[in-house]
Amino acid sequence: MSDCLFCKIIQGDIPADRIYEDEQVLAFLDIHPVNTGHTLFIPKQHADNLLETPDENLAHLMQIVKKIAPSILRAVQAEGFNLGVNTGSIAGQVIFHTHIHVMPRFSKDGHDMWHEKEIGDLTNIAERIRKEIQK
Amino acid sequence: MSDCLFCKIIQGDIPADRIYEDEQVLAFLDIHPVNTGHTLFIPKQHADNLLETPDENLAHLMQIVKKIAPSILRAVQAEGFNLGVNTGSIAGQVIFHTHIHVMPRFSKDGHDMWHEKEIGDLTNIAERIRKEIQK
Repeated sequence: MSDCLFCKIIQGDIPADRIYEDEQVLAFLDIHPVNTGHTLFIPKQHADNLLETPDENLAHLMQIVKKIAPSILRAVQAEGFNLGVNTGSIAGQVIFHTHIHVMPRFSKDGHDMWHEKEIGDLTNIAERIRKEIQK
Repeated sequence: MSDCLFCKIIQGDIPADRIYEDEQVLAFLDIHPVNTGHTLFIPKQHADNLLETPDENLAHLMQIVKKIAPSILRAVQAEGFNLGVNTGSIAGQVIFHTHIHVMPRFSKDGHDMWHEKEIGDLTNIAERIRKEIQK
């Protein structure tokens, strides 16, 4: 959709710290991270939210989350992660293009979900994750 | 697995407020709800966590979440929901059998995630959701 931020990222009109891409899925770092390595997985085919996303796109999206999440965890030395999908503005959805949050967790991070943190250089973090994926 | 709480619920050895069941998936109300209608969707085939869950089981699980979530929202008159999956104890996973949380959201609920609330009669809520699914 022409006015969708994530569609513009997919098309390359807006830059993002991309970590993975295939024909159906793009993964990039959240610019408002709640922890180091906070990544968004989105289907390339626009859908406003999870409920509007075709089953086959969702299946592939989850398959890629499973495939890529271990590399994210290794790259940032996290021990686990929270997966989250907000559906509807009442639930905190801000961009109306389906996106799955993968939020790595660390000991002593206070398990503080959904509060943006100062993380440092996203480009460098993305580079570390991409290298880990290629291993 | 013999010592898994959710496997015991699947087998009927431990009661639960079930709202949906098919050959591969069971959905029931969380006994520690963060909001009215807080539901867990689990694969019947045991897997310790999301990363250990076979792709095809995960695909079906997400398909059923998509199918059933609108009925949950209508039954409890919620306007949206947060989907969450905690992977690893560091991320708050307590039961090591894959489960997807669907947490309905309401205006004025303070968007207070992951804090248990006094909700009232779960059996009655489950009944309302089951009726809505059958409509």
